[in-house]
Amino acid sequence: MVESREVKTARRLARKEKLVAVAAGREPADLVFKNATYVNVFCSTLDRGDVAVSDRLIAGMGGPYHGRVEIDMTGKLLLPGFFDAHIHLESSMVRPAEFARAVLPHGTTTVVTDPHEIANVLGVHGIEYMLQATEGLPMDVRFMLPSCVPATPWDESGAVLDADALRPLYGRKHVEGLAEMMDFVSVANGDPAVLRKIVDAQNEHRRIDGHAPGLSGYDLSAYIAAGVYSDHECSDLEGALARLSRGQYIMIREGTAARNLDALADLLKGPTHTYCMFCTDDKHPSDLLELGHIDYILKRAIALGVDPIIAVKCASHHAARYFKLNNRGAVAPGFLADLLVVDDFDHFTIEQVYRKGVLVCDHGEVLPFDEPQPAEYLARHAHDTVHVRRLSAADFACAGPLGVVEMVPGEIVSADGGKADHIDLGTDTLKIAVIERHGGSGNIGLGYLRGYGLKSGAVAATVAHDSHNLIVVGADEQSMADAANRCAEMGGGLLVMEGGRSRAEVALPIAGLMSELPLRALNEQLESAKEVAFGLGVNRGIDPFMTLSFMALPVIPTLRVTTRGVFDVSRQAYV
Amino acid sequence: MVESREVKTARRLARKEKLVAVAAGREPADLVFKNATYVNVFCSTLDRGDVAVSDRLIAGMGGPYHGRVEIDMTGKLLLPGFFDAHIHLESSMVRPAEFARAVLPHGTTTVVTDPHEIANVLGVHGIEYMLQATEGLPMDVRFMLPSCVPATPWDESGAVLDADALRPLYGRKHVEGLAEMMDFVSVANGDPAVLRKIVDAQNEHRRIDGHAPGLSGYDLSAYIAAGVYSDHECSDLEGALARLSRGQYIMIREGTAARNLDALADLLKGPTHTYCMFCTDDKHPSDLLELGHIDYILKRAIALGVDPIIAVKCASHHAARYFKLNNRGAVAPGFLADLLVVDDFDHFTIEQVYRKGVLVCDHGEVLPFDEPQPAEYLARHAHDTVHVRRLSAADFACAGPLGVVEMVPGEIVSADGGKADHIDLGTDTLKIAVIERHGGSGNIGLGYLRGYGLKSGAVAATVAHDSHNLIVVGADEQSMADAANRCAEMGGGLLVMEGGRSRAEVALPIAGLMSELPLRALNEQLESAKEVAFGLGVNRGIDPFMTLSFMALPVIPTLRVTTRGVFDVSRQAYV
Repeated sequence: MVESREVKTARRLARKEKLVAVAAGREPADLVFKNATYVNVFCSTLDRGDVAVSDRLIAGMGGPYHGRVEIDMTGKLLLPGFFDAHIHLESSMVRPAEFARAVLPHGTTTVVTDPHEIANVLGVHGIEYMLQATEGLPMDVRFMLPSCVPATPWDESGAVLDADALRPLYGRKHVEGLAEMMDFVSVANGDPAVLRKIVDAQNEHRRIDGHAPGLSGYDLSAYIAAGVYSDHECSDLEGALARLSRGQYIMIREGTAARNLDALADLLKGPTHTYCMFCTDDKHPSDLLELGHIDYILKRAIALGVDPIIAVKCASHHAARYFKLNNRGAVAPGFLADLLVVDDFDHFTIEQVYRKGVLVCDHGEVLPFDEPQPAEYLARHAHDTVHVRRLSAADFACAGPLGVVEMVPGEIVSADGGKADHIDLGTDTLKIAVIERHGGSGNIGLGYLRGYGLKSGAVAATVAHDSHNLIVVGADEQSMADAANRCAEMGGGLLVMEGGRSRAEVALPIAGLMSELPLRALNEQLESAKEVAFGLGVNRGIDPFMTLSFMALPVIPTLRVTTRGVFDVSRQAYV
Repeated sequence: MVESREVKTARRLARKEKLVAVAAGREPADLVFKNATYVNVFCSTLDRGDVAVSDRLIAGMGGPYHGRVEIDMTGKLLLPGFFDAHIHLESSMVRPAEFARAVLPHGTTTVVTDPHEIANVLGVHGIEYMLQATEGLPMDVRFMLPSCVPATPWDESGAVLDADALRPLYGRKHVEGLAEMMDFVSVANGDPAVLRKIVDAQNEHRRIDGHAPGLSGYDLSAYIAAGVYSDHECSDLEGALARLSRGQYIMIREGTAARNLDALADLLKGPTHTYCMFCTDDKHPSDLLELGHIDYILKRAIALGVDPIIAVKCASHHAARYFKLNNRGAVAPGFLADLLVVDDFDHFTIEQVYRKGVLVCDHGEVLPFDEPQPAEYLARHAHDTVHVRRLSAADFACAGPLGVVEMVPGEIVSADGGKADHIDLGTDTLKIAVIERHGGSGNIGLGYLRGYGLKSGAVAATVAHDSHNLIVVGADEQSMADAANRCAEMGGGLLVMEGGRSRAEVALPIAGLMSELPLRALNEQLESAKEVAFGLGVNRGIDPFMTLSFMALPVIPTLRVTTRGVFDVSRQAYV
């Protein structure tokens, strides 16, 4: 229900009158943190005093203040809630509500997500699904619009989001800008279709995030001049300084697939820190459970010698300023009461998390909340994304030689393994297929994979970057057909098939990307499925699903498999 | 003429394609600063290289770049154009175009003005007049909407600007927010009519500037919690830190009437500098001609031991970030090519000024430009603002005793001089009158003034803060009547009347506030009028016009004269 502007203004005015009365000490606060030691991001000091909250906002500090609820903060720290400047929520493989339950104990109260994965499956419906699935969560989820769907012209995705498709979405509440512009080549080359997306975002005075690993010199200047305001792909100090000195804000990424803090910590030890913030990009289930989120980055930064106050500013205030969300990221009057109670900088135990003045997490326990439910038509659409006809072994047969993708342990790059014309377990030559699943072409691209290690059966997945078609690798064609058919039957997910039996399954019925389970249960499923895959011979230096999911991404050298066959990224041509 | 959105976007896209091609080195730049040493505000370094400009934007740095025009910068500094974060343009007493001619040689390329003075005379028409009189100038003039017209309920101004009057103006191009909220008492008391103005500005995601000298503790928290984001009235470090630590940005003011840099320079020597910027508030003609503008503040800051790079950031980048004018205030790709060529930090001679890539000032000479002309109906309105009937000596007569306003040399505060019932030159007791001139009540408030020194004749002015009624001080009632009548005949201005003859005049036909003359000619008139006033006995410790103009402002202690008589500010009551 949408309030009229007048009603909304009257409500705001009434709230403001109360806020001012609380700040002035004329009325009791709703909540007071008594005798708190709080990080003052403006003076870069640790200050001491009462912090009063009225409704959802901080009213005043210092005081003394009194309130209906008073919390003794003696000896404890009060910090602004943490902010993840760039993440793809889908990478957690759970529903957004479950993601919130996972990161709130770690102090995250705002995330900016790029729904790039689901948009590749469902287009604007995927973006809308995520908007509705995050509305009203006890954390603030803001959106950047996916700039590159499909990621490359070689991809067969579930949707094509051109400038005309994206433009109306800037009117949607919680949309903050244009997400990572991965197609830096087209930007630097001045491709008008890509520049149009940037101009549209600028017309709306929105932020445009970058993604340009390895870009330098003239092309980097061209990319930045075009209007790309940040980068989260910096993996060395030189590259980061090249960007920062040209005015880009640096999102220091410490996620599951890529970890850049060690290389970039020096940015936080000089005046450049003002233009830095933290992000995770991708956080997989086990990583969320075992390491944490932005708090983990902050603790690592402190361990690397960064001033704790600067680390807190990068974890909150600087990201808020970058996104022009100027009412958060500080303990100060008029700021959102997104606040963390922490024991001290040494142990850094987050005891309580407040979102808009409401306790949402107490000693690691997230308080119950009503989970947002996307509209029924969207939910139905999101649960019906694997459109693959019933396949047989013959669909995976091929008489002639095909390219061999050679995996590199510990890396997502691959090597060119030449050609092969049959499966050969002796040389670890498996068959690999990418099956278009969005209901378009029905194409099946075939090739061979070396270095995966599977000795029997097949592994299938609908998480396969960036188009998320159905990828299958197998020791025989019948197992591949069985795996693909079962995966389609599940409505998407990950599975291991052997001897005509499904040996392990992780159902991901939401767009073939996300589970309906709680994070911990999903993680147990996932970990046991990995063990089953390892048991069938998959090389332990490889993540049986995550590494596989990158074998379909035709932007990383050397060979990849697409729905049209093996593609040579270096030569930009099919093998 | 307003372009359709599509035409505008197409134009932007074409410009962007060129910008990217120039940045990438594929096309020649329009302008290249060869081998420049430029301030990098992001890294806080002095960097070296070519700086390429395409149309109005900086395309790239480093290079090498080539262009149609190349300027050898060997040994010279390139800085972002300077930014005055808060000024009342009317205080220069010249047309905005003349103001631009005065400050461009000093490197100012953006000013944020609060048209508070003219709005007190002409209301929204005054704001519109200034918007039209600044549109297309070779500097960028942005507006904050006057928040307090009239300044107090004791004033009789030419207009009342309540929230309903201000609201539609947020849709006007170049309006950035709500100007200095001087009525801090009402804000801290939660007056809904005043809070409504703040809520309206927040609804539009605009900035709200502050003005709260002396406020502290709970009331300061209440004022800031209400949504006031900056203050330019700090005159000591303690007060500035109280504001900054609560999240306000500090505009360090160094103007004609108030100079706060010495007291606040320490803010620029620690991490607090990030939240500081420079402003002038009021710049009178002689001050503009003799001292300069933002460059003067920057030079003084350096002399006080502030790092020159931080001083440059406060003079440009920090103000731009505060106002969310994120495309200026840095030498970096995609930023506006508002650039200054300076010899070095020691001499700090501004050799050239570029605005949007165009040379607008060369070695102190402002290049000719077409002066913007406000619409005829506005110009007519602005030239017809002194609505006073013909007065005689009898209008200034009063039998009973009246309050005596006692001037304090070198200050704008006044003392309570008791009462008097006649002019007495022996005790320097003059008569003073404030005549309502906006065509409303026709009220004439009478009183006595001590400490001014005039020995014969009268001095009259239509610059009389903040309502700008006609103020007259005289040694006899006939001279007062003559002065008032002549001032009305002139359509406003300043004058000295003696022996029935006007001895010196400064015509200010635009709203009774601004001259039609060039700055230098206006200043000569003004200085010679002051000399005439001094010749008639005015105390040399007093500015005959400026100090007088504050005697009508019923917010500064102790006694003031309004259109309704002598007012005691301390007691908030008429004497």
